[in-house]
Amino acid sequence: MSLIEEKFSKLGVENAPGQEVRQRNNNLKITGANIQGDYVDFSHGDVNAFVPTPEAFEVYSEGYKIGAAQAYTEYRGDKSIRQFVADKLAQFSGAPVDADKELILTPGTQGALFLVMGSVVTKGTKVAIIEPDYFANRKLAEFFEGQIYPIHMDYMQGEKDGKAGLNLQELATALKTGVEVLLFSNPNNPTGAIYSKTEIEQIAELANKYNVTVIDDELYSRQIFDKRAYTHMRALPNAPKNLITIMGPSKTESLSGFRLGVAYGTAYLIDRMEKLQAIATLRAPGYSQRVFYTWFAEPDGFIEQRIMQHQAIRDDIVKIFNQVSGVSCRPTEGGSYLFICLPELTVDIQTFVKILKIQANVVVTPGTEFGPQFTHHFRINFSQDHDKAVNAVRRVMQVLEYYRA
Amino acid sequence: MSLIEEKFSKLGVENAPGQEVRQRNNNLKITGANIQGDYVDFSHGDVNAFVPTPEAFEVYSEGYKIGAAQAYTEYRGDKSIRQFVADKLAQFSGAPVDADKELILTPGTQGALFLVMGSVVTKGTKVAIIEPDYFANRKLAEFFEGQIYPIHMDYMQGEKDGKAGLNLQELATALKTGVEVLLFSNPNNPTGAIYSKTEIEQIAELANKYNVTVIDDELYSRQIFDKRAYTHMRALPNAPKNLITIMGPSKTESLSGFRLGVAYGTAYLIDRMEKLQAIATLRAPGYSQRVFYTWFAEPDGFIEQRIMQHQAIRDDIVKIFNQVSGVSCRPTEGGSYLFICLPELTVDIQTFVKILKIQANVVVTPGTEFGPQFTHHFRINFSQDHDKAVNAVRRVMQVLEYYRA
Repeated sequence: MSLIEEKFSKLGVENAPGQEVRQRNNNLKITGANIQGDYVDFSHGDVNAFVPTPEAFEVYSEGYKIGAAQAYTEYRGDKSIRQFVADKLAQFSGAPVDADKELILTPGTQGALFLVMGSVVTKGTKVAIIEPDYFANRKLAEFFEGQIYPIHMDYMQGEKDGKAGLNLQELATALKTGVEVLLFSNPNNPTGAIYSKTEIEQIAELANKYNVTVIDDELYSRQIFDKRAYTHMRALPNAPKNLITIMGPSKTESLSGFRLGVAYGTAYLIDRMEKLQAIATLRAPGYSQRVFYTWFAEPDGFIEQRIMQHQAIRDDIVKIFNQVSGVSCRPTEGGSYLFICLPELTVDIQTFVKILKIQANVVVTPGTEFGPQFTHHFRINFSQDHDKAVNAVRRVMQVLEYYRA
Repeated sequence: MSLIEEKFSKLGVENAPGQEVRQRNNNLKITGANIQGDYVDFSHGDVNAFVPTPEAFEVYSEGYKIGAAQAYTEYRGDKSIRQFVADKLAQFSGAPVDADKELILTPGTQGALFLVMGSVVTKGTKVAIIEPDYFANRKLAEFFEGQIYPIHMDYMQGEKDGKAGLNLQELATALKTGVEVLLFSNPNNPTGAIYSKTEIEQIAELANKYNVTVIDDELYSRQIFDKRAYTHMRALPNAPKNLITIMGPSKTESLSGFRLGVAYGTAYLIDRMEKLQAIATLRAPGYSQRVFYTWFAEPDGFIEQRIMQHQAIRDDIVKIFNQVSGVSCRPTEGGSYLFICLPELTVDIQTFVKILKIQANVVVTPGTEFGPQFTHHFRINFSQDHDKAVNAVRRVMQVLEYYRA
């Protein structure tokens, strides 16, 4: 295998969320009857159930009408929009943001993640990746030929201890060994666990001690349940010198169709990201950039209501899982994900996921996307129609019984 | 300097089109009076002068109304839209396109270029880059740590010979030496030269002989002047086995603000591009994808009229350049670019470009973006308001006289 063949062999998309349509379902051995019910795609949120922020489309239209100036912005994004977003994010995160030097608009939060990883990881760069964490993190490190140091999170124990459950000892050892980059999501994807203030402080302390670049993916940080505390690393007195925070309006705000994200933090890293963006996509979609003016500017109560609605779905779904023997999960603290651990089955998790599509009319994401050891797990995004989601979860648990070992 | 610092030091964006706003103008020694006139930014086309395709925005609105299905498409793009685009491109290029396997929708043509280069270039891959050619080509090869083999194009001699003027001998030598990838734009950016059929055939023959992957950037291939012949490499009987053609509606159709592009060709390369897209931006902007339904479906006469209008601007501008001693250019055969060669000046080209902004109220792109040897050149995109463009070029020629050596 050539170098590049090897690189792409690690970048499978077949099991990635949204790609199920490309799967082949050969030779599945089906047991039990199919269970009728509305199709639910738990691989991502349903923006028909939770619709985009009011005015988003109208504001987009304004962008289109502006024409050339909005179509061709600076690579890092339109100056006035960056100023608006910087002010909002400074207020939200609790520390100032220089709109000119410390912020870049990107095509989705995925774009932000790609640009920052491409700006700090090259062949042999040692990168700490949390397990479990967002499935693309590992793939990004692999694409840029970094050397991955997995850091484990015991999120089930963490729940009992009132923290995410990151193995800080393991992290310390990795950093001592020369790890230069740490990437993590908070709230954690796929578990919905929030890092405690102490954990964030300790990570920052370690990052400072070993001069590590930290990438703090806070995509879901506006959707925090049960009024829990949330700590933005960048606002700590000992915030790492090299720190990029990632955020975007694709989730709680349902604006994914506009492809908008943002990265903010250390100026020289933002400069690099802009250089990479210049050859990757030029800029975040021009007219879409305008939609940022609706961000952190939603009608009164909009976000609060959205949080309440998601919390209610979470509660109903968790209740179902808790009633099934051998099934466990940590209730989501922030975001829209649940990471479900299953008992021993007669089929592997990839097969079970395919079966669920056929027999339960439900799409979920296999746990192995989030770390090779999660062979008994799947993830769901419960940002869905409430009743349909609850019914779909019931069907999943029924199908589970067909395949219980 | 660390590996990654070195990598990014080669990726300057200060002189790139659209980035002039970030330049510092310290210590410029100005001679002569400023010349008043409407601001013209020749670094890219003006979508206020040549507005987006009729119905583009309305079709976008439909995409937004569709909601979830349009916001979250497969990474390679919505299936029905791919089918539509594949049919149009098959007809346009003269050879079939499999919508399922041979085509991917991307965030702009820049996105297509990035994805294909990331799919074939890794550390040490030998890449043939034409000089002059699109400024990002070299940067992409450098970002992915390829080894660049510059192939020269004598486009001024080529004009006399009825061809682009590529040095095929040089290309043959490079391929013999182990070059694995050839990237070129046709019509050439920045000169507007079209490759002759013989040249395209000979490139294809060489590519076959040495098993080279060819990337044929045809972004401007709908805007061909003077009813010239144009050869799509992919439709040749001896088309290379590994061939990706790149295209998009950002130029002639003025749809850049929607960030849409497309790559089509060899299936396994499209598969790789999708894997890379999955971690880079997930997909081309969801709602925007819908706008592809206006592509190759413009009102009767729309494209023809647009070509005539651009041809008329070209003629008026070329006439002005031809009247100035020591100034030369090859009249554009396709696309909206002119690459102007200047006589000896008292300042270098970067300085002259900064001076033009101050004294002529005009932005142009320095020739060195297109190859290090183009120290007496600049590029203009003349997709502008006709009269403003002509007046701006007159001012540029007046300022030139201030600095003639």
